[in-house]
Amino acid sequence: MDSATQSPSICFETSPEQYRHWKLAFDGSIAALAMDVQEDAGLRPGDYKLKLNSYDLGVDIELADALQRIRFEHPEVHGVILSSLKPRIFCAGANIFMLGTSGHGFKVNFCKFTNETRLGMEDMSAHSGIKFLAALNGICAGGGYELALACDEIYLVDDGSAAVSLPETPLLGVLPGTGGLTRVVDKRKVRRDVADHFSTLPEGVRGRRAVDWRFVDRAVPTSQFAEVVQARARELAAQSDRPDAGPGITLGPLNPTVDGDTFRYRYVAASIDREKRTCDLTVSASDSPQPATPEAFLEAGDQAWAVRAFRELDDCVLRLRLNEPEIGTIILRATGDLAAVLVVDHALAEHRDHWLVREIIGLIRRTFKRVDLTARTFFALIEPGNAFAGTLFELALAADRAFMLDDADRPNAIQLSAANAGLYPMSNGLTRLETRFLGEPDSVAAALAHDGPYDPQAAAAAGLVFDAPDDMDWDDEIRMAIEARTAFSPDALTGMEANLRFAGPETMETKIFGRLTAWQNWIFQRPNAIGERGALVTYGREGRPSFDWRRT
Amino acid sequence: MDSATQSPSICFETSPEQYRHWKLAFDGSIAALAMDVQEDAGLRPGDYKLKLNSYDLGVDIELADALQRIRFEHPEVHGVILSSLKPRIFCAGANIFMLGTSGHGFKVNFCKFTNETRLGMEDMSAHSGIKFLAALNGICAGGGYELALACDEIYLVDDGSAAVSLPETPLLGVLPGTGGLTRVVDKRKVRRDVADHFSTLPEGVRGRRAVDWRFVDRAVPTSQFAEVVQARARELAAQSDRPDAGPGITLGPLNPTVDGDTFRYRYVAASIDREKRTCDLTVSASDSPQPATPEAFLEAGDQAWAVRAFRELDDCVLRLRLNEPEIGTIILRATGDLAAVLVVDHALAEHRDHWLVREIIGLIRRTFKRVDLTARTFFALIEPGNAFAGTLFELALAADRAFMLDDADRPNAIQLSAANAGLYPMSNGLTRLETRFLGEPDSVAAALAHDGPYDPQAAAAAGLVFDAPDDMDWDDEIRMAIEARTAFSPDALTGMEANLRFAGPETMETKIFGRLTAWQNWIFQRPNAIGERGALVTYGREGRPSFDWRRT
Repeated sequence: MDSATQSPSICFETSPEQYRHWKLAFDGSIAALAMDVQEDAGLRPGDYKLKLNSYDLGVDIELADALQRIRFEHPEVHGVILSSLKPRIFCAGANIFMLGTSGHGFKVNFCKFTNETRLGMEDMSAHSGIKFLAALNGICAGGGYELALACDEIYLVDDGSAAVSLPETPLLGVLPGTGGLTRVVDKRKVRRDVADHFSTLPEGVRGRRAVDWRFVDRAVPTSQFAEVVQARARELAAQSDRPDAGPGITLGPLNPTVDGDTFRYRYVAASIDREKRTCDLTVSASDSPQPATPEAFLEAGDQAWAVRAFRELDDCVLRLRLNEPEIGTIILRATGDLAAVLVVDHALAEHRDHWLVREIIGLIRRTFKRVDLTARTFFALIEPGNAFAGTLFELALAADRAFMLDDADRPNAIQLSAANAGLYPMSNGLTRLETRFLGEPDSVAAALAHDGPYDPQAAAAAGLVFDAPDDMDWDDEIRMAIEARTAFSPDALTGMEANLRFAGPETMETKIFGRLTAWQNWIFQRPNAIGERGALVTYGREGRPSFDWRRT
Repeated sequence: MDSATQSPSICFETSPEQYRHWKLAFDGSIAALAMDVQEDAGLRPGDYKLKLNSYDLGVDIELADALQRIRFEHPEVHGVILSSLKPRIFCAGANIFMLGTSGHGFKVNFCKFTNETRLGMEDMSAHSGIKFLAALNGICAGGGYELALACDEIYLVDDGSAAVSLPETPLLGVLPGTGGLTRVVDKRKVRRDVADHFSTLPEGVRGRRAVDWRFVDRAVPTSQFAEVVQARARELAAQSDRPDAGPGITLGPLNPTVDGDTFRYRYVAASIDREKRTCDLTVSASDSPQPATPEAFLEAGDQAWAVRAFRELDDCVLRLRLNEPEIGTIILRATGDLAAVLVVDHALAEHRDHWLVREIIGLIRRTFKRVDLTARTFFALIEPGNAFAGTLFELALAADRAFMLDDADRPNAIQLSAANAGLYPMSNGLTRLETRFLGEPDSVAAALAHDGPYDPQAAAAAGLVFDAPDDMDWDDEIRMAIEARTAFSPDALTGMEANLRFAGPETMETKIFGRLTAWQNWIFQRPNAIGERGALVTYGREGRPSFDWRRT
């Protein structure tokens, strides 16, 4: 059973008026983001109840939306208090019954999205000048504690019962896979033996001990909790370089039109071929004048190409991930005017220190990371009329391979810009050019120093595209590459791409998606977790799990 | 079906006279290590034939033995030519029929051992002054090419047909999981699109193209191949700082005595409790004078404690891994005289630049890494009469938790030495102390500066042990910790430990065991690989694989 294919399509757009599980309130420089999950409002309400502030993908889609709105709509917000509206419960983690009744692909993609959302919070702390304080008023278990771990600081109420815990291993036979294990030892730098002990303690740790062992930053008596949290949030917020007041820009709905298997946004279109199991995904360059100053970006709001095109691309990639598991190969194209992209790049690079421009760059950066981390093959096709310049050329760099048509009769060019020099680092901390040229670092500088467009032969010679077939060979080569790709084992491709895409250094982020996630996915396949008597399936039901005791 | 539990016990000891698959010959500073796999001499000869120099665990056990003997018995060897005695065939990789008929746990542990062997070659290049040249005379596919990738340089015969390839993904639906994907992009720094293309090409690449794309260092016409390989091997060997001549020390058989479920070596004993699924593993300190100079180490040979005890520990851990999959928890003890260990440590640290002492340190380093990478829980029990000092204290640091008995009536102490300051770095490049104290780096220096023994309270206060219960609590605390541990899902523990043990930086080595191996293990569970119509099962048989096309 794979719920992702049984359920109706999942939509990733929402807005605060539609939230069912979160309350977002503002008080000067502080946003209060409070969890109040509605039990009966899960994505598959008949299958499970979201008790004790447990969450499913729908809850997390709202959280991701709230973060995006804080970034763009509320420049005056410098700090976020993450809390709960339920008495003595912060969050019980991902809903076990949801996990137990979900198929493998859905579970994996659910975890990927929640990981991206939490890394997005750390991205806000590192890049946006927005600090997070987790205010834990009670039960904080599993994914609940993993959410807290994504915050800059964690305050726990000291009432003799509130505890943080990672009970996945002892109770469910799976991992705290939303970054929990990694963040405990790598971010909070808890000693490994203490982390080992903690990760096997169903009840977790409380009060002073939680502080001494580094699991939380402070334990505060109930009577002072609200006040201390407020005060600390203001201190954290005071570190920000965000503006003191708005306006921000409002993120309106994207309103894609769906016509059979074609999704059409303003700048992004996706068309699925179910028989071939491919999707043509095209991003268009802007076809109208774009903002050149921060003021103009503020005025253009969510209609600026750089905002709209990447919100659309992000939405489209998420829909493909969750709603179209069988579509294994995505054919990327960028169309329009190279120069139109370069003008935008120039504005972004020049004003990168302005809060809004910084957020736009961040949106684009996170969207490209989402592509890097999508378990589908990406082939970029660079044809005459393409707009693979600068920012959009990152898409070709993110692709597993890029093919560029060399047709004497139809000029075809790509071009780099300052955007390729560091606006959008990958999860490994390097730019896509640096990762590409690990073996020939001089090629990075040479490519960035190259003034003007590259024709197909020059692009191939510079190592910027995989191949540049001529018009005699183009159709056959592309057809055969796609046909070969779509015939391979989808699992082998997922593993292969996850290893080849991230050469070079590893970071906490790549550890979460590489080591931690890969092990979790392994466990999500094991009978000890998902078999009839597996721990994830038997949890909360009659009887105990039954294990095959063999270690691997 | 899990062959590991059906087959008779696997023995990891062998010697050149017993080799069936390799020829080891010596010519001055060059060793020729040539593969000549006997088809009918597999570990389970009825189940598969080792055609085309394909290998199984038995072939790799001989390779590991040959490397160990080159290290210790042949100090005059400065370079190794890795070749094949079969015409136009180097190595076809791991035997597919062996993989297709092996259980999950066996496959995973087979891959782990082969990875350790290949990393051992790179360890020889980095630390022993022994360079490897792969001389590929023909077919070099999959695991065959991965073996070549572990060498310092790869020379390929240019005869119009010899090729290197990683056909696992296109042909078998699995990964080149013995470091192949990682080494292609991270060691040889092949561009990711080229690596992607290559990893889907069943036929691989030949000649000039293989050189241009960085997959091999040189392609040499058949007529000059032997001569060019010899000349280059001599050049590589000339970089060595190993002695020009022997003697080395001979590695004799370990001859453990097996008595029911107890294994007894001279310094190591392992006793299995099948009902509890635990193993008591004890390492004894030396009880006789030990070498203090390189000359004395040469004279003592394989009977020196530092050599013998760690050869025994290594053998014991390997047997537990492969032959005792249900024994999930290993209780480590070190007994004897703390001072005896410290004397050895002093000799090792003082003479670390001498080739033999360097090899002994390397043996100990690799053995500890083997422990780090063993998918079993290790609890260290530090009781009165313990010998957890210096080198042996690394075992306590390698354990998931160490408990130290605090009994007023029976003094109990541990002690550090220079050995803990850097003789045995982990796969992540840090010492075990540095990894342990990522969050409090000053504690590393403080621990190393501490002169003399630590009593239980001092050890606990310094963070060197997990807990120091008194004699009233000891029995209950240990019993409960073990009982709780052995009740958890073995898979969740494997994933949890693999994440908590390796905080801090990642290296190519940790990427191979973390990212690459975890994905391979995931794939090894997937019906697309191992189901009735999975690619690994249908390979070479009638019919094609049938895939569930859903990507995750």
